[in-house]
Order: sequence, then structure tokens, then C-alpha cells
Amino acid sequence: MSKKIRIAVDAMGGDYAPTEVVHGAVDAIKEHDNITVILVGDRDAIKKELAQYEYHQEQIEIVHTTEVITCEEAPVEAIRKKKDSSLIVALKMVKKGEADAVISAGSTGAVLVGGQVIAGKIRGIKRAPLATVIPTMKGVSLLIDCGANVDARADHLVQFAQMGSIYMESVIGIKNPKVSLVNIGAEEAKGNALVKEVYPKLKELDTINFTGNIEPRDIFAGETNVVLCEAFVGNVILKLAEGLSGTLIGAIKDGMMSSTRTKIGGLLVKPALKDTLKMFDASEYGGAPLLGLNGLVVKMHGNSKAKEVRIAIGQCVTFMEQGINDKIRDQLGRK
Amino acid sequence: MSKKIRIAVDAMGGDYAPTEVVHGAVDAIKEHDNITVILVGDRDAIKKELAQYEYHQEQIEIVHTTEVITCEEAPVEAIRKKKDSSLIVALKMVKKGEADAVISAGSTGAVLVGGQVIAGKIRGIKRAPLATVIPTMKGVSLLIDCGANVDARADHLVQFAQMGSIYMESVIGIKNPKVSLVNIGAEEAKGNALVKEVYPKLKELDTINFTGNIEPRDIFAGETNVVLCEAFVGNVILKLAEGLSGTLIGAIKDGMMSSTRTKIGGLLVKPALKDTLKMFDASEYGGAPLLGLNGLVVKMHGNSKAKEVRIAIGQCVTFMEQGINDKIRDQLGRK
Repeated sequence: MSKKIRIAVDAMGGDYAPTEVVHGAVDAIKEHDNITVILVGDRDAIKKELAQYEYHQEQIEIVHTTEVITCEEAPVEAIRKKKDSSLIVALKMVKKGEADAVISAGSTGAVLVGGQVIAGKIRGIKRAPLATVIPTMKGVSLLIDCGANVDARADHLVQFAQMGSIYMESVIGIKNPKVSLVNIGAEEAKGNALVKEVYPKLKELDTINFTGNIEPRDIFAGETNVVLCEAFVGNVILKLAEGLSGTLIGAIKDGMMSSTRTKIGGLLVKPALKDTLKMFDASEYGGAPLLGLNGLVVKMHGNSKAKEVRIAIGQCVTFMEQGINDKIRDQLGRK
Repeated sequence: MSKKIRIAVDAMGGDYAPTEVVHGAVDAIKEHDNITVILVGDRDAIKKELAQYEYHQEQIEIVHTTEVITCEEAPVEAIRKKKDSSLIVALKMVKKGEADAVISAGSTGAVLVGGQVIAGKIRGIKRAPLATVIPTMKGVSLLIDCGANVDARADHLVQFAQMGSIYMESVIGIKNPKVSLVNIGAEEAKGNALVKEVYPKLKELDTINFTGNIEPRDIFAGETNVVLCEAFVGNVILKLAEGLSGTLIGAIKDGMMSSTRTKIGGLLVKPALKDTLKMFDASEYGGAPLLGLNGLVVKMHGNSKAKEVRIAIGQCVTFMEQGINDKIRDQLGRK
């Protein structure tokens, strides 16, 4: 039998930790008999949650820690000070080869900084981008970098394009994915200094299927598979889309509650509306991976529940089974 | 009687030129007896349109031109070559003091470049930002810079903040408007090098009501009045919002057409839905002004019709009556 995939889970990170995190871990091992989940956090709290379930005990380990990094703390300082926090201990396990992947729904800043600093980058990778699957009219796209490296350089973005392409093909399963550069015009000559420098470099690459610029208005229409941008722009896209969808849907719901007539109409369209909105739910695709690291670090939403934890663990399994890091090393690593 | 406000209108720019442009101009002079509209473009085509209306003839002038800049042309080259285009001739009228303002629904690039190069900037203004009114849950906000100056510097953004504040207060009528900096986190220490440099400079200004960072998810909730960012990010915000709203609303409409039940429900909620979507229509506020110029240059949507042209002319009138450029000179101009 082949060696088991070892996934360290930050049991203390997120709004519903440890309850939902432990629940998701138990569900995940039932789906994957080739994995061991290491729950990192307060032993007593974890044991109390585990006591509710029946599961193969040899698939779950507990590593006891005494500290938790909160979202309110400055990430760099928290990482330096809280050596015995669940996140840092989990990341160190990846660093030491004791785990293949880490998932956390805790502080985004601490995951991003800790991922790069503690887990460490693959030799030859300059920066580790955060990628996330976004829903579109035609399925899903990968938005990369959606928040890890502000003020990135052109050569960083070129690597992000390659890593994003590998991830989209091997983990999400889209063959020869289209890679496009976010720009404020369709033509090559458009944009700021960064994108003008990146564009010709992407055109030269024969390892990706570069299709040119994508204008922001076309992103959610699903015109491309990998949406490439630097982290400030990527984070604006991600957060604006979340905020605007919420605002629009809220306004539409309010409109439907405005009279008896619209309330009746609203009841009739409600199931269809629900189905429509489900189309725009990308949570089936797991959390946001930080790519280019030794091992894999996945950042989940702070409000993740058992289902999202289970899916994120499955995402780590696919990542490992597909040998993503070997592919990144082959294409981008320094030999 | 005070001197009339002279507004040059690019009669050949936009999808519905000259028909709708001329129509809008005629409607505008009926609302404002203190203006003269100069229709710049092909004389015969303009006269043919004008022949359909009754109006005070002394309020309309025609300046004949023989060329038109299309949206397909590279702006810089088009401006250099097409000296007798409607847009260039109109902009030169502002430069020479023969007109107070220009409105155009033509090529955005040509309007932006031509505005800065031909109309010219107020002494002391480093860059002329493009501002646009965006709809929010609480009314409207001003997004500035939404597309004119990529790779702007911190001192440019500081001027944009001041000009945006003046415009919002005097043209849109929001007293002591809140000004916020688009950032990917709420805290001062967040963001890229540019926003980190801009933030303390804005905090020091006593001419604006700076409220700190605004995260993209809160923009359309209407948390602030002036949404400040550099042009690449601003254009991403504008275009993404347009694209995503369209995508979402399209999907919801499709959902409502999916069965007899939902079709009936859809009919019942349709008027309310229409009202809701009208909330998100900022066309009542005119076109996008390019601020900090000698005179005023307003870029309208390419698909503008008579109503939008009429409103944009009214916007120029308010701009002039409120003495915006004097206010900008007082606060920002080099003495």
C-alpha cells in the first residue's frame, strides 16, 4: 500500500472552530482511506468533538498546541510570538515533512505570511500567489493572485500564470486552460507599466495557453479559465464581486417584499432564484491554495463549516495525487 | 444679462450620433436659457436633424468639421492626424476660450488624451482624473480616477481626492463629502506601496473629510461619497461592476423563464425588479467629468441617447455656475 497523504488541519482557525473543523475532518477520512488528518489545536477541545463520531481512529492524529492566532493580530508579529499556535505548528509540520498539506480557516494574513515564511517556497519560485476558484456563467475560473503579493513584478506574474495553469488543469480538470491577463482594454498596448511588461513575456511562453487580455466586464461571463492579475487588483476583484452580488441580491429581495403582489411573485420564483444563486457558489471547489510552496497551504473562508473543510481536505488529496508540486518543479523550479 | 455659458458638443461622437446628440442639445437649451450649445460636426447632417425641431435659434451654433475619430483608432495617433475632427475642434474651442465645456460620447481614449493635451490642465494640477458617479444602496458615490492616469503617483491621488471632494459637494450636492481610499484592508498599514504612501498625506489634509480606507466589498453599499483610487483599479471597479451586474441580472431573468410557475411569478415581480434596477442607474447624473482642466470635458457613454446628452449639458451648466474650476484653483492651483 502506498504511503498515506498527511494533511494537517488548523483545528482552532475559523468562526466555527473546532466544532465544524473536526466534523469536516471526520467526514473527509470517510471519503478518503488513503489519508491521515492531523488535527492541530487544543487536545481536550478536539477530543470532546471527536467523541461524537465513529471513525477509523488510525486516520486521525492530534497534535496539541496551546495558542491561537486571531484575525485581529498583526500577522508578522503573531507568527513571531505565538510559536505554539495551531497554525504555526501545522505549517512547521509541512516544513519538516511531517505533513503534506495544511488547511486553515484562520487569519488570512497569518496564513499568507506563515505559508511563505514557514512552509517555504519551492526552489526557483519567487513568490507564492494565492489562487481562488470563482464562479462564472460558464462554470468556474481561477483568480490568481487574489491577495498574497502586492507590488509584484512582471516575472512573478509570469510564474503565477504557469502555476495557475497547472492547478486549473490538474486539480479542477480543465484541459489546456485559457490564461488571460486582467487589463483595462483588450489590446496589447493598453494598461499600466506592469501589464505592458507582462504581456509579451506571457506571449512567449509555450507552457501556457495565453489568450491575451481580459477586461473586467468579461470575467464573470466566464470568457477565460485562469484570470491573472497582481494581488491588489485580484483582491479588489474578489471583494468587489462578493460585495456587489450581496448588495444586488439584497436589493432584489427587498423589492420582492415591497407589496402583496410581489410577495406572491417572489414565492413563485424563489426556488428558481435559489438555483440561480447556487450557480454562483464556488464553495464546492474548496479553499484558496497558496501555490509554489513546499507542500500545500489552503486558506479557507473564516465562516467555513464541516462541508467546506471536507471539500478542502479532498482538494489537498487531489493536489497530492496529481503531483502538482512536481509539475511546478519541472516547469518552473531551479534545477 | 450675464455672459452665456458656451458648451461645445461633439455632434459626431457616440453610437447614436448625430441624431440623438442633436436631439439632446435641443432639449437642453429649452431647460437652460443661459446657454449656447455649439454643435461641432458635419454641417449638413446636423442641419438635417435640427430641421425637425423648433427652438431658439440664437442658442445653437454649428461649427463644421469634416473628420470623425472612431473608437477603433489609436487615440494619440488619431489626435495628431485628424485635426479637423469634431472632437479636436471642440477641444480647441475650450483651449481658445471659445467654449466653456465640451461633451463627447466618442472614443474614450481620444477624449482622455485630447482633454489633457489640447484643453490643457489648470496651472498646478499634475494630472486630470476621470471621475464617474456610481450608484450605491445609499444614493451615489464618485469614483475617481476611473480610467485616465495609470501608474499615477501619490501626489496625483492627493489632488484627485481634493478635486473629487469639490465636485461631489458642488455639483452633486453632498455637503462635506466623505473621502475614502480603496484598499484591500481597513487598517492604515494595509495595501501596496502606493496606498501606503497616499494614506498619511490624505490624513494631513484639512480640505477634505478623509475617513480612511474603504474595502471593495463596501463600495456599493454606499459607505462613502468619494471613492479614491488609481486609474487601473478604478477602471477594474467600474467595468467589473457593470459586467457582474449584467451577468447576475441576466441569470436571474433566465431563472424566471425556466418554468410556467416562475414565469407567472416573474410577471408579478417584474415592476418591483425594474424599480430596484433603476436604483442602480446613475445616468441621471450625467457623464464622466475629466477634472482639473481649463474648462470642463465630459465623457459620455458611447450608447448615450438624447436624455443623457441633455443631462450632461445640464451637468456642465452646474459645473460652471458653481465655479468649480475657481474652487480647484483656489485650493490646488499654483499661484
